[in-house]
Amino acid sequence: MVNERLSQQIKFIVEIDKLKQILRQSVIIGSKKNENDAEHSWHLAVMAILLSEYAAQEIDVLKVIKMVLIHDLVEIDAGDTFCYDEKGNLDKEEREQRAAERIFNLLPKDQAQEIYDLWQEFENMNTPAACFAACLDRMQPFILNYHTNGHTWQKPGVNSTKVYQRAAVVKENAPILWEFVQELIEDAITKGYLIR
Amino acid sequence: MVNERLSQQIKFIVEIDKLKQILRQSVIIGSKKNENDAEHSWHLAVMAILLSEYAAQEIDVLKVIKMVLIHDLVEIDAGDTFCYDEKGNLDKEEREQRAAERIFNLLPKDQAQEIYDLWQEFENMNTPAACFAACLDRMQPFILNYHTNGHTWQKPGVNSTKVYQRAAVVKENAPILWEFVQELIEDAITKGYLIR
Repeated sequence: MVNERLSQQIKFIVEIDKLKQILRQSVIIGSKKNENDAEHSWHLAVMAILLSEYAAQEIDVLKVIKMVLIHDLVEIDAGDTFCYDEKGNLDKEEREQRAAERIFNLLPKDQAQEIYDLWQEFENMNTPAACFAACLDRMQPFILNYHTNGHTWQKPGVNSTKVYQRAAVVKENAPILWEFVQELIEDAITKGYLIR
Repeated sequence: MVNERLSQQIKFIVEIDKLKQILRQSVIIGSKKNENDAEHSWHLAVMAILLSEYAAQEIDVLKVIKMVLIHDLVEIDAGDTFCYDEKGNLDKEEREQRAAERIFNLLPKDQAQEIYDLWQEFENMNTPAACFAACLDRMQPFILNYHTNGHTWQKPGVNSTKVYQRAAVVKENAPILWEFVQELIEDAITKGYLIR
């Protein structure tokens, strides 16, 4: 190919097709199919467009959308780690750092840096954009769970205390969404989708 | 739910989960699995981030990303129409208009209008943002086809003349991407993935 820069970009675009095969714990509503990371990332990005009005602090919506679109790319190498799997989470950071280095560096240097910075910001969760992206990343599987009889909430070791802990980021960063999340969790408990 | 506006937004977010079950003609690289519309939309959005530098005219990247994220939602009702299926394309517009009205109107009025306008702009393809979004929407399945031995290009009635016609929008709106597309098509013909 004539253009070296474009050639690197295309290699990355081909590589990330693999995200469509990284399965998550959640299932798609009305099906038995596990959701994959590409589908999840798309869903978060649409939610970012629609729900950004609820962010407690001013956020750069484009940045939030970019973050949620790329936040799971490292799982192409590192795999999906179930958020309530304490053992799996022990070496998650190290595995994901190695993945980020390999995958993002397929891109031209400036874009590799941009994607790496977005991913690190998301992981570090200490900017308004990253905190809001985290709110969406918590809410979306809650919504799927609620509409699939608590699919991943039925797994061993999951209870409402852990789910509330995981949802905590929403409370401060999107109070109106927090009201919704609380209602959803309480209703899930009432319906037997989640143990108290 | 206390907040009527949020309740409408959540209904829409639940409804569009169905996009993950709308299958396209393309298959995912290295698999036999048909790609679905959510995966495709995610892929286009990441491409928009990375390739916007090649747009011939100045474009609003956020708008392009929003467009590609929502451009296929109408297929939840209208289904995926294969681009080379002349019969299926006869009533496509009417089916998709009905779908847009039902699905987008689940949202609060202002957001329903925003999404409808983005979708119409994409469909009409007469703004720089819509033309660039169309370039991505052509390129992405070409890339998948190239890496799956010409999967959808092997279907009856498809040949390089039709593929070139479909790719034409790239020529004017992203000349550097057009060089890539031409190389890819010619190489696909040489390799027997596509008949001349």
